Amino acid sequence: MNNYSSVRVGVAGATGYAGVELLKRLARHRHADVRFAMASGASEARTLPSLARIWDAPVQPLDADRLAAETDAVFLALPDTLAAELAPRLADGGTRVFDLSGAFRLRSPELRQQWYPHSPTSVVDVAYGLTERARLELVNAKLIACPGCYPTAAVLALQPLIAASLLEPGIIIDAKSGISGAGKTPSERTHFSECHGSIAAYGVFGHRHGAEIEQELGVPVTFVPHLVPLDRGIFETIYARLRPGVDVADVEAALTCAYAGSPFVRLTGGQLPEIKHVVHTNFCDIGWKVDRGQLVMVVCIDNLVKGAAGQAIQNFNVAFGFEETEGLD
Amino acid sequence: MNNYSSVRVGVAGATGYAGVELLKRLARHRHADVRFAMASGASEARTLPSLARIWDAPVQPLDADRLAAETDAVFLALPDTLAAELAPRLADGGTRVFDLSGAFRLRSPELRQQWYPHSPTSVVDVAYGLTERARLELVNAKLIACPGCYPTAAVLALQPLIAASLLEPGIIIDAKSGISGAGKTPSERTHFSECHGSIAAYGVFGHRHGAEIEQELGVPVTFVPHLVPLDRGIFETIYARLRPGVDVADVEAALTCAYAGSPFVRLTGGQLPEIKHVVHTNFCDIGWKVDRGQLVMVVCIDNLVKGAAGQAIQNFNVAFGFEETEGLD
Amino acid sequence: MNNYSSVRVGVAGATGYAGVELLKRLARHRHADVRFAMASGASEARTLPSLARIWDAPVQPLDADRLAAETDAVFLALPDTLAAELAPRLADGGTRVFDLSGAFRLRSPELRQQWYPHSPTSVVDVAYGLTERARLELVNAKLIACPGCYPTAAVLALQPLIAASLLEPGIIIDAKSGISGAGKTPSERTHFSECHGSIAAYGVFGHRHGAEIEQELGVPVTFVPHLVPLDRGIFETIYARLRPGVDVADVEAALTCAYAGSPFVRLTGGQLPEIKHVVHTNFCDIGWKVDRGQLVMVVCIDNLVKGAAGQAIQNFNVAFGFEETEGLD
Amino acid sequence: MNNYSSVRVGVAGATGYAGVELLKRLARHRHADVRFAMASGASEARTLPSLARIWDAPVQPLDADRLAAETDAVFLALPDTLAAELAPRLADGGTRVFDLSGAFRLRSPELRQQWYPHSPTSVVDVAYGLTERARLELVNAKLIACPGCYPTAAVLALQPLIAASLLEPGIIIDAKSGISGAGKTPSERTHFSECHGSIAAYGVFGHRHGAEIEQELGVPVTFVPHLVPLDRGIFETIYARLRPGVDVADVEAALTCAYAGSPFVRLTGGQLPEIKHVVHTNFCDIGWKVDRGQLVMVVCIDNLVKGAAGQAIQNFNVAFGFEETEGLD
Repeated sequence: MNNYSSVRVGVAGATGYAGVELLKRLARHRHADVRFAMASGASEARTLPSLARIWDAPVQPLDADRLAAETDAVFLALPDTLAAELAPRLADGGTRVFDLSGAFRLRSPELRQQWYPHSPTSVVDVAYGLTERARLELVNAKLIACPGCYPTAAVLALQPLIAASLLEPGIIIDAKSGISGAGKTPSERTHFSECHGSIAAYGVFGHRHGAEIEQELGVPVTFVPHLVPLDRGIFETIYARLRPGVDVADVEAALTCAYAGSPFVRLTGGQLPEIKHVVHTNFCDIGWKVDRGQLVMVVCIDNLVKGAAGQAIQNFNVAFGFEETEGLD
Repeated sequence: MNNYSSVRVGVAGATGYAGVELLKRLARHRHADVRFAMASGASEARTLPSLARIWDAPVQPLDADRLAAETDAVFLALPDTLAAELAPRLADGGTRVFDLSGAFRLRSPELRQQWYPHSPTSVVDVAYGLTERARLELVNAKLIACPGCYPTAAVLALQPLIAASLLEPGIIIDAKSGISGAGKTPSERTHFSECHGSIAAYGVFGHRHGAEIEQELGVPVTFVPHLVPLDRGIFETIYARLRPGVDVADVEAALTCAYAGSPFVRLTGGQLPEIKHVVHTNFCDIGWKVDRGQLVMVVCIDNLVKGAAGQAIQNFNVAFGFEETEGLD
Repeated sequence: MNNYSSVRVGVAGATGYAGVELLKRLARHRHADVRFAMASGASEARTLPSLARIWDAPVQPLDADRLAAETDAVFLALPDTLAAELAPRLADGGTRVFDLSGAFRLRSPELRQQWYPHSPTSVVDVAYGLTERARLELVNAKLIACPGCYPTAAVLALQPLIAASLLEPGIIIDAKSGISGAGKTPSERTHFSECHGSIAAYGVFGHRHGAEIEQELGVPVTFVPHLVPLDRGIFETIYARLRPGVDVADVEAALTCAYAGSPFVRLTGGQLPEIKHVVHTNFCDIGWKVDRGQLVMVVCIDNLVKGAAGQAIQNFNVAFGFEETEGLD
Repeated sequence: MNNYSSVRVGVAGATGYAGVELLKRLARHRHADVRFAMASGASEARTLPSLARIWDAPVQPLDADRLAAETDAVFLALPDTLAAELAPRLADGGTRVFDLSGAFRLRSPELRQQWYPHSPTSVVDVAYGLTERARLELVNAKLIACPGCYPTAAVLALQPLIAASLLEPGIIIDAKSGISGAGKTPSERTHFSECHGSIAAYGVFGHRHGAEIEQELGVPVTFVPHLVPLDRGIFETIYARLRPGVDVADVEAALTCAYAGSPFVRLTGGQLPEIKHVVHTNFCDIGWKVDRGQLVMVVCIDNLVKGAAGQAIQNFNVAFGFEETEGLD
């Protein structure tokens, strides 16, 4: 079904949480030949204990020249600023880039300047890689900006309803995330004893994923993220009013129609999703209930899989013409 | 400041989570003389290991006659059906009853019939014991229905804003609760491995605390409770639109004015509360932010203290004329 | 490498924690044709939300006759008493049985009578399926008793050292287990609020896995299991004195030699294992340190994988001549 | 019962976990007049949100001169190196010092040099403040080194048995600690996602608390600490052989005799302690079981209370002649 028996692949940022998930899946991917696992900030090679017997080669210091010269595709699981610099350089050199950072997600130069000031504002030909909505565009894309974890869940749930004009203005997204979403760098906010047994809202009216969600939905939303004491998983409760005449059957129809050909979206109807059903998978589970015109939706993903590494590989599969589920079961 | 040096007290339901919290605080209360700790379903006396050296007397099988005859006040931390039967009987006999169950919280006979079908519909003279709003009523009350944990948080946050006509219709309460809120009886929903690492919404459009919140606020709300993997604490994120002309200063003024004399309500303004600051205390922390007319409030309590045992004792203190904070620091 | 292109398989006990892990792996196993997923106690068919799109067929009520007639191999993830009855019946009928219960693990009739009183004492031809030590025996075995989770870890770590006479008497095994090891049936001990934030020792001097460990090692041990507040994983800290003249190199040599051909045993030396490196995998990680003749070993497995479902499939692979790692990556 | 109606007190290190626990208890202590809460590293005053309404004064930058001049007693909850410098200076000036750091716990100059190289080796007149064993010494002590959390539990459990010559050599202490024991400074080891769902042994054969335990017990021990995914609490499982002729009654007698007058030691016998019974209290719960000469003990404390702030206040109470339990219920 494609011209590649095997694609030469590099992973940059292999020691972070998303990086390990990438390596674990790419190591058993039938069409990926992992040539490099690299880490920024590393001065010497190291191995990853959790990947022993799965991927035993060392993680090397980041070397952009070798990535450019010796790979067909690179996954960037790097800080935004580093990805901002590296991604265009690799893409211009002919390597296809799957960027898990936020550096290229926002199309508006003003918003990109506001939220990712180190990102070039003039980059063109970036595909926004929410796979379910980008399959055609991915085939020829050189630089794929993989969506943020919160937007992945929110946009998959809401976009079909907005496209079908089912909702009134005034959408509220109450998002709960596991702590791994904050990455591997220690901080007071992600210190065990600060999180365990507690919940905190953060970035209220000021989280860059809010801008990304609004870009993709085309309407304003109120987005409030929370940290909850679990490791992996995003749970979003979405509140909206249905427009007059719209009922629960319309909601179901719009979603069913949108995701008929999407192997990783599971519609659960009134049986609302729970994080435990999606962790360690690439699934996005979406459920909903309606009462007197009030819609309540629940969406769950694993932030490190469908919200990061899994979706990047899903994009890789589509971009290179492989089975969409390859390496992701 | 009152006529009692000491009140003879009984605790019924002493082995549940709220019961232990009651006993722990009453044992060191300067004006409570704990005569009985009783448990329904117990066929013989037992002791509570966590209360050794704090309250060493045995927990006895429930004996309503002795409670009626030998106490001035009884705390009921019993299942709704048992409280429904016991509370009026004790109150009629002259014992003041602080009922932590839901049996007498709803005033409307129809709603009470719907949500608490075993409760008598005709009971009169029940005080709804949200202390901050019931101080005068408590002085002469015989049967005090202590509020549910979710309503305690929601009503303390919203009532002053609604009373001041600051909010548009369409209030949303996204509530997150620790698992102890579900009580001590094992079930699949509260089984460790079902909760750990997961989040679940439940009772969407069908939780009786929704009816209680609407009763106290006088307006309809969309109330969605969630179970999150922590033991104690409630965190409610509240969404509402401010009416035209209303701004954040009005919100602050309404709350400041409402709680000027309330030792257990802490207003944190734009520094949003977190559960870790209130667990094991009787505090209710309330914070808020406004952006372009959208209000986001966060309220936190410990569901077993301000949401149960602590508020019951706070009501006891007010009812008997003691210092409101006695036993609660 | 074998005579089977595909084996007709049944899973009995498919709704428990081990059952779901079995189904998830067997569904993508290249040589397993899952004909039945059944559950005892179920009166009607149901589906498993976490397995949607992975294994969508319904879980049916247990039907031993169909299992006997229409499968070549059955995995039993049932209560001991039910497995005690069903396993010999299926094995006698020619179906190969991989029993995850404890019913047939103990060979001594006296001990079996003591710990599993419902198990027949006269069953012969049971293979004790600790794969790494049973490969030859598995080829012709009809009834394979898969080891308990605690014994799997303890015996893999200790057996090579005891076989090489490296240890003094007086071995201590301090075992810490995630709560899923206690199964899916709710109880006070596994109630979320009883476990969260706490640790408990249980079954001290009276846990049947102690007898199983002693059977396999041939020496007495002091075995103390603890419940710790996490979902999956076993962590055992093992204490023993080295015999005079024995040093850390002898320990390493014995273990290296024992597991040279074992794809799922990872020796980590002085870099002690952690649960997070093995969860959701079939690996058993073993590390050790020695100081002045005192050996401290740490062993980690996922109790539901190497300690249950994974090892059962590993046994299935060996028994039928498939690649040992098939379905287990 | 003493000459002080009120003692002028300072807390240095008030923003750490132990510091907040100190302030919370001292603020309601009937004989403590908290004059200062100070923090090292702070350049300006700040308040503590969890202590609002409990202790509302600001935490100031550390000012040793004011502590020396305007307090009678100072609690040091500082890093070892800072305490090493500050404690002798304050004590020499007449302020009684309750040091929660490790700087002065080890008496041997060699061991102190090894584990706390910044501590002066020549300091005299340090009292080792394990309250239950130091009551007489505390009365006149100027510098009290409060014990480490692990040693507090281990020594309380073992010392009476060793003093009575009940145990064979070869004691093993398998210690499990909540993450708050590692303090408030973020690190990879205490990062939420590294701890949640995992267990790790650390400092095997190389933890300075091992030296402290051996100093207090006078015998060598094998001490292995583990981090478990909970916030507060220490759980130690202790293994030892009873000497010939010794039985469980001797163990009980030794412990009962040792702690007859100790309000915070609870002996639970064969009902082994659990962390949930001691968190947020100053209790140390000790249980034990014996089988064929093998002793298994379990000891539990809250590492921040009896293992830190609580014991420091207990020492303060004894040192100044107050009720030993004042401020600690």
